[in-house]
Amino acid sequence: MSSIKVHGSPISTATLRALAVLHEKNVDFEFVFVDMKSGAHKQPHFLSLNPFGQVPALEDGDIKVFESRAITKYVATAYESSGTPLVVQDKKQLANFAIWSEVEAHQFDPVASKLAWELFYKGLFGMETDTAVVEENEAKLAKVVDVYEAHLSQSKYLAGDSFTLADLHHLPALHYLSGTRAKAVFDARPHVSAWVKDILGRPAWQKA
Amino acid sequence: MSSIKVHGSPISTATLRALAVLHEKNVDFEFVFVDMKSGAHKQPHFLSLNPFGQVPALEDGDIKVFESRAITKYVATAYESSGTPLVVQDKKQLANFAIWSEVEAHQFDPVASKLAWELFYKGLFGMETDTAVVEENEAKLAKVVDVYEAHLSQSKYLAGDSFTLADLHHLPALHYLSGTRAKAVFDARPHVSAWVKDILGRPAWQKA
Repeated sequence: MSSIKVHGSPISTATLRALAVLHEKNVDFEFVFVDMKSGAHKQPHFLSLNPFGQVPALEDGDIKVFESRAITKYVATAYESSGTPLVVQDKKQLANFAIWSEVEAHQFDPVASKLAWELFYKGLFGMETDTAVVEENEAKLAKVVDVYEAHLSQSKYLAGDSFTLADLHHLPALHYLSGTRAKAVFDARPHVSAWVKDILGRPAWQKA
Repeated sequence: MSSIKVHGSPISTATLRALAVLHEKNVDFEFVFVDMKSGAHKQPHFLSLNPFGQVPALEDGDIKVFESRAITKYVATAYESSGTPLVVQDKKQLANFAIWSEVEAHQFDPVASKLAWELFYKGLFGMETDTAVVEENEAKLAKVVDVYEAHLSQSKYLAGDSFTLADLHHLPALHYLSGTRAKAVFDARPHVSAWVKDILGRPAWQKA
């Protein structure tokens, strides 16, 4: 029996981010489904795990962690010696690791999430896609991804020669967008396109 | 002569975040003013430091770092043995450090930045404050700060007994909001209020 529990929902990109890191680190865990449709994430039990009422939340013995990128950092550091190394030590790599972790959160994710909502989730909930919003955000994504293209022409992964959390954090959004018209934005840029293919093909991500 | 250069503007909260960490770590640096009014942050020289064209950017010899929270992490880790320790090692502290770093970026900052814009920056630029937006965001801030109050009733700082980057990242927004009506949201909560007073009073922050 594992001491780690992940509370979340498989359709949540933030939950997938947490699952990706656990599979990369080869850490056993138990998945606890949070039924957001019935509002379980706003009930006292879940609020005791995350007072903001958002999935996912992780329990590791008596340690509780919420916010998906906090979960990835916690797992990658607390289980550093297990599975794939996902954090860096070298000073030069550290700069790129820090930069691209923040770029994902503040430049990539806001735009990618809007596109995933319009092009994937709305369909799932029987809602209609707003083409104007899609076009506006595809243009924004193209500008962001141009910066990735220049960077990835110089190193295979975002923090350097090896896959780290800075790459991993992108997986859920890349996964959903790869099944939509927004895929063309990545396909048009050879280094980005190779990077997307490489990281989506990782065995740990397939499991997640 | 210092090998570290910070390119930014003193009215930018993100720039102040970078200055705060350099003063805490007692690291010498040269400040390079970026005249955003004349669009210097969108010119080739600055874009070579940050392709997204946003202040601040840091140069440490041949290492370039952008995104303010990447700069704080880089400086806190690369200069770990100098000045105030700002990152944590202990597994339990690590969870809180990771959680509250993310809470600042994803729960606190979006609301606090909107309030700072309405209540501080708009006045600076001769624009009119939108009271409806202020009230909406004060209500949101109150909900967020309720979670801080519960947490800070159990530990002096966000990651535990000592001041870390998780606290430091809040300084610029707390500084500007403390001079506005939004201060009442913090004042109404004793643990939050004591924490705000404590961290704004740090000598390194006074220098920044």
